[in-house]
Amino acid sequence: MDKNDHLHAMRHSLAHILATAVQQLWPQAKFGVGPVVDNGFYYDIDLGGVKLSEEDFATLEKQMHKIIAADQPFERTEVPIAEAIAWAKENHQPYKEELLNDLKRAGTTAAKELDGEELGVATGAESKVDKVSFYTNGDFTDLCRGPHVASTGKVGAFQLQRVSGAYWRGNEKNQQMQRVYGVAFETEAELKKHLQMLEEAKQRDHRRLGQELDLFVFSDLVGSGLPLFTPRGTVLRNELLAFSEELRGGLGYEKVWIPHITKKELYEISGHWAKFGDELFLVKSQETSDELVMKPMNCPHHTQIYASQSRSYRDLPIRYMETTTIYRDEKSGELHGLSRVRSITQDDSHIFCTLDQVKQEASQLIKAAQTLYSTLDMELSFRLSFRDDGQGYLGEKALWDRAQKTLEDVVKAEKIDYFIAEGEAAFYGPKIDFMAHDALGRTWQVATVQLDFIQPERFNLEYTNEKGAPEHPVMLHAALLGSVERFLSVYIEHTAGKFPVWLAPEQVRILTLNQEKATVDYAENLLAQAKELGLRVAVDNDNESVGKKIRNAEVMKVPYVLVIGPKEIDSGQVVPRVRKDMEVQSESKALKLEEFLSTVKNEAKARVNKTSL
Amino acid sequence: MDKNDHLHAMRHSLAHILATAVQQLWPQAKFGVGPVVDNGFYYDIDLGGVKLSEEDFATLEKQMHKIIAADQPFERTEVPIAEAIAWAKENHQPYKEELLNDLKRAGTTAAKELDGEELGVATGAESKVDKVSFYTNGDFTDLCRGPHVASTGKVGAFQLQRVSGAYWRGNEKNQQMQRVYGVAFETEAELKKHLQMLEEAKQRDHRRLGQELDLFVFSDLVGSGLPLFTPRGTVLRNELLAFSEELRGGLGYEKVWIPHITKKELYEISGHWAKFGDELFLVKSQETSDELVMKPMNCPHHTQIYASQSRSYRDLPIRYMETTTIYRDEKSGELHGLSRVRSITQDDSHIFCTLDQVKQEASQLIKAAQTLYSTLDMELSFRLSFRDDGQGYLGEKALWDRAQKTLEDVVKAEKIDYFIAEGEAAFYGPKIDFMAHDALGRTWQVATVQLDFIQPERFNLEYTNEKGAPEHPVMLHAALLGSVERFLSVYIEHTAGKFPVWLAPEQVRILTLNQEKATVDYAENLLAQAKELGLRVAVDNDNESVGKKIRNAEVMKVPYVLVIGPKEIDSGQVVPRVRKDMEVQSESKALKLEEFLSTVKNEAKARVNKTSL
Repeated sequence: MDKNDHLHAMRHSLAHILATAVQQLWPQAKFGVGPVVDNGFYYDIDLGGVKLSEEDFATLEKQMHKIIAADQPFERTEVPIAEAIAWAKENHQPYKEELLNDLKRAGTTAAKELDGEELGVATGAESKVDKVSFYTNGDFTDLCRGPHVASTGKVGAFQLQRVSGAYWRGNEKNQQMQRVYGVAFETEAELKKHLQMLEEAKQRDHRRLGQELDLFVFSDLVGSGLPLFTPRGTVLRNELLAFSEELRGGLGYEKVWIPHITKKELYEISGHWAKFGDELFLVKSQETSDELVMKPMNCPHHTQIYASQSRSYRDLPIRYMETTTIYRDEKSGELHGLSRVRSITQDDSHIFCTLDQVKQEASQLIKAAQTLYSTLDMELSFRLSFRDDGQGYLGEKALWDRAQKTLEDVVKAEKIDYFIAEGEAAFYGPKIDFMAHDALGRTWQVATVQLDFIQPERFNLEYTNEKGAPEHPVMLHAALLGSVERFLSVYIEHTAGKFPVWLAPEQVRILTLNQEKATVDYAENLLAQAKELGLRVAVDNDNESVGKKIRNAEVMKVPYVLVIGPKEIDSGQVVPRVRKDMEVQSESKALKLEEFLSTVKNEAKARVNKTSL
Repeated sequence: MDKNDHLHAMRHSLAHILATAVQQLWPQAKFGVGPVVDNGFYYDIDLGGVKLSEEDFATLEKQMHKIIAADQPFERTEVPIAEAIAWAKENHQPYKEELLNDLKRAGTTAAKELDGEELGVATGAESKVDKVSFYTNGDFTDLCRGPHVASTGKVGAFQLQRVSGAYWRGNEKNQQMQRVYGVAFETEAELKKHLQMLEEAKQRDHRRLGQELDLFVFSDLVGSGLPLFTPRGTVLRNELLAFSEELRGGLGYEKVWIPHITKKELYEISGHWAKFGDELFLVKSQETSDELVMKPMNCPHHTQIYASQSRSYRDLPIRYMETTTIYRDEKSGELHGLSRVRSITQDDSHIFCTLDQVKQEASQLIKAAQTLYSTLDMELSFRLSFRDDGQGYLGEKALWDRAQKTLEDVVKAEKIDYFIAEGEAAFYGPKIDFMAHDALGRTWQVATVQLDFIQPERFNLEYTNEKGAPEHPVMLHAALLGSVERFLSVYIEHTAGKFPVWLAPEQVRILTLNQEKATVDYAENLLAQAKELGLRVAVDNDNESVGKKIRNAEVMKVPYVLVIGPKEIDSGQVVPRVRKDMEVQSESKALKLEEFLSTVKNEAKARVNKTSL
């Protein structure tokens, strides 16, 4: 058992220990499922009328520590499924009973979908399930595939985190249960580090910073999952998107424009309708009988621009890019700040090329992504998202193998670290997913390059090859930022809102030392000069102390602050106050206004993270 | 009778002469209405099974000329309405009978809506209509208010234009009639000029040029009224919109971003739901019970950004701008190229300010529009769109008077020509509409500044005034281009697709004289140099004659063409071929490559229409 497997077994054993404690404290408890999740575990519990809160955690943890101290061995037994059902009935565990009955009816394929781990289906079982396994510790028995650690004493360090509502099997028509989450690590030190990270993440929560820094707002009248971006937030969006466009523009990508709606016929051909039809926003025309939908992706529209002209091999690659918003009908319970929204703006691109050109195109995109993310001070890693043996993938297996091999060749040639994730492919082809690592050690999927043989065929896209014969091009789907809203949710937390000069909504704040006319005029004149250079500058001329004004600028995390008083006016020099994270030298020195302004301008243009001042 | 009234009477008399001719040729004819329209007239006719075509026009015109030659006087009679109805019955004119019956029931208010002119309602008639008037020429009599010219000989020059289907009273459930259109002017010379203009407009039709110049496409799969813009067309859109943003950015406008959908509650508060509810695209969520709509305007969303913070008088004016697409559910019969689309991209802005600040803001917008349109080589005129006495305007009359006076003061102070159009206001306030005049002498409403006291009140928007008390700001709605799609439909026809360098999708085309490696390398190197400067350049290296390649570039209306051969390579100089309309001197001279490239770059930057080469 390697380290990861051990951690997994440990966390899963803790889920059982939590359930043991719950059963001891509330014998009427009925249990749902209790799987391992990132950094810990949870268990779904039905306590009848009893409502758990974080105030119960001390009692619960105390009880769990007793069970741990008892060092009860985890003992495995296998029983025929009928016997297991009888056990569930006898012990008043209707949720387990329901799962077992489903399992009996449907066999392993269904079992896998129903979370096989929880169901105690032995690995490698045939399609018809005969036996299931139980694990027992002390007087608690649970249906479970395992594996577990040897005994309750071997579970490392843990802490209960929170309790929230969760519908049985995720369906809001079912009973609402209570989901108790815990985090767990092998050592106290690791746990402590993780808890500190969580605390830091709370401080950096992009929803909180979004409000404090006046970046975006939600309105009850507009609706959930539909953020509106203020002038400050719009600067962030536009600067990021402009960078992405600049990088791709340099590689020959041309901008196109498509509407946000389409007749559903477009998706019937692309295959999206069959796959995602019930996740789309439907659009009803009151004037015509058109059946329209909001676009949840841009590729089918872009194929229609390609298809509007006859194309030759000499025209390829044809590279379209577009910053445009797609709409996905997310369940309201899944919406979360900017991480999960219903209006998703992508820096999307589609390349139509020959199979031979894929490597060159993908490799250029990888390099562009590397430039983007290193500028943003984030490390990238690469995941090859391949198909698994499941259903729902379009196209022949041989084509998939070729496509997957092509992508693996690309990342090998780039000599970058990658790993393969089976089952993560799009339904029309495999992907290279770009994973960004943030300052808190978290990993986020951001950019992506997807290979697609399917849509060119379905839309009958063609080019004339060197022999004058028609052929289907290959399509690459690529984004560098992905969803700019989601990326911002990551990046705001990565930087804690301390944006580099090129992204800072307000780059320089000018504070007046007093409200005399000469001072105010000088500040306003400076403002005009800076604006002329294209800098984003504001004057704070409020009738407040300079100390208060400096603190206000710090709260807004403005990179540079200039205080203007008689000294500055006389000398024509300023001593800029630099935001701490940007400093490379601790002492600020006086410099001419023009010099300060042109340095800031150059820093913004060069997209640096540290200042040379 | 002034010139316009005379032209109107002349055209209306021609409609009667057309009907006279129709009745003589097809005695079974039943007549609908026959009003005056821009540049001419039409008459709606029901000929039973007989289908008219343009081939019948020679016969029809010959018959009309006979009637004109007979110089029959137009004689007016007034009869009680019951008698008129009896006349219609007797003469088998069911459409006239229906109109007269409606008129009898509903009185003048309805009569006005039903096109009073056609109905023969005497001007100034009381709300209950007692009498209607008829006009007779020769053996033809028609229900008509008049006035007419004295006799059929006094109708100037005319030509029949086209025939199309038209539902009786515009309702597709009614009988389809045949609408015969004619154009008419006082003199043959004026008519000829107009016909030439029509021919020129046909050549310049933006739908035709859109296809020839590869600017935009429609896809049956995406749907009608939903254009997709190719890379070339997207350059046009983006350059125009960037110019509009640059002009407003210089005036302190800040970009914001809003989603394209909203809960309908937003419009219930704004008042748009009651007014336009049945013209909106409804959006159905399959995951939630939210009732959403696509935004048909941006103001209500923008109020929510304003409302997200407390505002002080020192913060005003707050100026938001956003290039964003709105959606309007147009009837499919009304869609037309880019002139009338369902996806409408606006260079929209909203200013929140005090009443005192309105003049300054509106005057800046007028100046910005003047800069924009003079750069685009179009003349502007100004229309004050005020309310009339009709229903549906929100807010008190006194507030409207103040608002209208404010706007009139602005245009007076700007010393610009304007006229007042009653009944053209938005439902929430009066507007200054900017009318652009194109090269064919046509006038189009483009930009607009609208004053709005209503929405700030309805959304309870506030700022704290100098005395510390809350107050509603005033809202200004403004766009410089208006709908970029509609503007393009005008501008493509205005320029006949000969875009100035700053807008040209392809600014320079490099043609190779031969396909030798040295030539191709030189051309490719030149291409790279030009791209480095941000120019939009392409190489035509096809195995074709130079003559053919030059003609291809001319078809695409590329401003500059360079032919590269041994001479150019040896000398490092080029003799650019300049598109005719841009020339100020007729002789092209040789100049260094660098000089050529930097001149083109500067011309693009300065947005000039003529070249200095």
